Amino acid sequence: MQKPSIPKGTRDFSPEEMAKRNYIFDTIKEVYKLYGYRQIETPAMENLSTLMGKYGDEGDKLLFKILNSGDYLSKISNEDLEEKNPAKTAVKISERGLRYDLTVPFARYVVMHRNEITFPFKRYQIQPVWRADRPQRGRYREFFQCDADVVGSDSLLNEVELVQIIDEVFNRLNIRVCVKLNNRKILSGIAEVIGEAEKIVDITVAIDKLDKIGLEKVNEELTSKGVSDEAIQKLQPIIKLSGTIDEKFATMREVLATSNIGTEGIKEMEYIFNSLEIMNVACDVELDLTLARGLNYYTGAIIEVKALDVEIGSITGGGRYDNLTGIFGMPDVSGVGISFGADRIYDVLNQLDLYPDKFGNATDVLFVNFGEKEVMHILPIVTKLRTNGIRSEIYPDSAKMKKQMTYADNNHIPFVAMIGENEIEENKVMLKNMKSGEQKAYATDELIATLIDATKK
Amino acid sequence: MQKPSIPKGTRDFSPEEMAKRNYIFDTIKEVYKLYGYRQIETPAMENLSTLMGKYGDEGDKLLFKILNSGDYLSKISNEDLEEKNPAKTAVKISERGLRYDLTVPFARYVVMHRNEITFPFKRYQIQPVWRADRPQRGRYREFFQCDADVVGSDSLLNEVELVQIIDEVFNRLNIRVCVKLNNRKILSGIAEVIGEAEKIVDITVAIDKLDKIGLEKVNEELTSKGVSDEAIQKLQPIIKLSGTIDEKFATMREVLATSNIGTEGIKEMEYIFNSLEIMNVACDVELDLTLARGLNYYTGAIIEVKALDVEIGSITGGGRYDNLTGIFGMPDVSGVGISFGADRIYDVLNQLDLYPDKFGNATDVLFVNFGEKEVMHILPIVTKLRTNGIRSEIYPDSAKMKKQMTYADNNHIPFVAMIGENEIEENKVMLKNMKSGEQKAYATDELIATLIDATKK
Repeated sequence: MQKPSIPKGTRDFSPEEMAKRNYIFDTIKEVYKLYGYRQIETPAMENLSTLMGKYGDEGDKLLFKILNSGDYLSKISNEDLEEKNPAKTAVKISERGLRYDLTVPFARYVVMHRNEITFPFKRYQIQPVWRADRPQRGRYREFFQCDADVVGSDSLLNEVELVQIIDEVFNRLNIRVCVKLNNRKILSGIAEVIGEAEKIVDITVAIDKLDKIGLEKVNEELTSKGVSDEAIQKLQPIIKLSGTIDEKFATMREVLATSNIGTEGIKEMEYIFNSLEIMNVACDVELDLTLARGLNYYTGAIIEVKALDVEIGSITGGGRYDNLTGIFGMPDVSGVGISFGADRIYDVLNQLDLYPDKFGNATDVLFVNFGEKEVMHILPIVTKLRTNGIRSEIYPDSAKMKKQMTYADNNHIPFVAMIGENEIEENKVMLKNMKSGEQKAYATDELIATLIDATKK
Repeated sequence: MQKPSIPKGTRDFSPEEMAKRNYIFDTIKEVYKLYGYRQIETPAMENLSTLMGKYGDEGDKLLFKILNSGDYLSKISNEDLEEKNPAKTAVKISERGLRYDLTVPFARYVVMHRNEITFPFKRYQIQPVWRADRPQRGRYREFFQCDADVVGSDSLLNEVELVQIIDEVFNRLNIRVCVKLNNRKILSGIAEVIGEAEKIVDITVAIDKLDKIGLEKVNEELTSKGVSDEAIQKLQPIIKLSGTIDEKFATMREVLATSNIGTEGIKEMEYIFNSLEIMNVACDVELDLTLARGLNYYTGAIIEVKALDVEIGSITGGGRYDNLTGIFGMPDVSGVGISFGADRIYDVLNQLDLYPDKFGNATDVLFVNFGEKEVMHILPIVTKLRTNGIRSEIYPDSAKMKKQMTYADNNHIPFVAMIGENEIEENKVMLKNMKSGEQKAYATDELIATLIDATKK
């Protein structure tokens, strides 16, 4: 018989791993709810017509496609076999695919349910997505996204709140982070002023190296990328941008004075930084003009979060997009959103050993099974404990003591209760603290009080 | 542009529907944990070699199969096209499928992780499953299962606990139920005693009609199904079984005296009923010899739950199986489990209008947006509320008052806070109770106390 296995790039989650994952998800959910975001879920399968063409050619290839039920074979012709174009034939024999992200299904949801939704619509969604990527260390074919988006509101308050949410989540998780902000409009303004619109990515990449290679080398790199001397001259104050945040804004206002869009971008960022100051955000928030993620869809603010104490890529990202639902025939719906990278956050918590002490203990107390007679005496006591919210187990078989204690140990159960003949006679329960080894006999009511006290904190 | 849609038989879950679904799942989870069950999750995709042949020919057809990435086309030959056998060709171009239930992936999990697991292993799992069934009212192609199983223990205490869990869950959900119990061994005993092993399903079906058609007609039906007169004679005490549970057991003991397996089944059921009595289970628990679900896999206790106040099929079921993991080469692992039917429970709660009042309110209070100046004044107040755990929103745009109030209404937000010029001057917040219409001005600290009191109960 063949040994069972699971598909490459997928994972089982053991009880211990689930406890860690739930700790992250529950923290994020709790904060999303605190800010009035409401949960939705969409099906794992979407019609391929919904998914195809939304993620570029590369994305189309990475979609998991589901074979049509029934007589798909008759849809394949001899010509198809000869032509050897798997992508072209796939659409004949597959109408559905697994979702690739949560954004496109959300856009589809908004358009389909537009008449039931009260806008602005603040939704969060935590579900797995699937990509037929080559599996690598830290990259999976099934992984979770944790998105929050507001659609139907242009207000910058949404951006402010999303940064607050980021701050609050990482604060609760005890991860020190820096939030980097940029604005697509400022980048467009820079491009406009120096007249090199198509070189904006080269420019941000070069500026990003200032600390490492110095101003002279940055300017050389810009020249080598074909940026004109005049443009490089104009860029100097931006490249050397420094001082307080207000000084930075002043410099930028000057450089971008002739660009409407650039000036608008600066105004937006000033509003966001001012509001965050009033809101007393705890984490570092930085203006970072080299931040150029998602340039092909973000139209306003761009958000990226870095962990301060671990070398790892961005652990959360987001931004504003102006036309989420246009692809489905509903134009002019502006949105802004963020997505927590659950897998990377999981890695950070593991590396820094930041999981709290007690979160994983499913069970508070295990009752040792000494045999039939003892069990019958135990049953009503255990019922009483459970009524009081104490997570309790009776070891189901009257196995050897050692086996039962190993069970408690391996499952991280902090207390073991023993009721033998003596205890039955005295109507007591012997409670052993598995960490300290301490043992003490209690009446049932004392036992309940002790366990509530010890486990609920 | 085509209108977006979702695949037949799948569903979106709106915030209101999510709140209802979470209410059910959270209740079940909480009780599972109270009894020491630990959560696992498995990937949506399994290798087809894991899934195929486990659900019968019909089940194999209902598996959603995922098209292999890359050059699957070259695996199809001209002969395949001519032979027109989609099932045979499918295994050449598809190696993975979506899980069909949680039981087979769990068996696969236990075998793969046998060295990390401490047995007995009490696990619960709440995840969607997919079946390419013809969609109908109340039957979906994507739906959730909520399973709990214990593997690696023969103890009947597990059966007792599972009935307690059922009792506790429906008690918390306020659904009145009857738990019906039977035992495969008793049915085998009956078959053995009357010498008609292969007719056991016909016999249970006929007995089930006693109340409706009377003893004479039941006997006629048995005759028409080919059961011998002698067998029918022997069956009479079982068909007419009545009296207290102890009297029933006494009658059965007599009838099945010559059958070892039947006698063992009766002993098991007596133990379970006795223990449930000691445990003070609240719901009706009934011995029902006509219960014959899952005869091809259950080997001991059979469990089924009926709602008392709604006409609907079984809303939870389960039983003991002796060889869960044998299919994957790990023999002799006994297990017993139950599965809550989330979709039917959802329907029952809707029909009886049993959802609690407050569960769906994501947000406690909405701050009306009167404009920039007022918002800047509001920001630190809202931060303070959130720090106190009060779910708070600021309407992001300074829209018309009517629009903002409609937003609060449609999202079931119970309180609206208003801070206009007067309130800023007096450092107060005007709070409106959206249900009573009552308005009152509060200082921030009073506001917090009031909202905590009103929303947290």
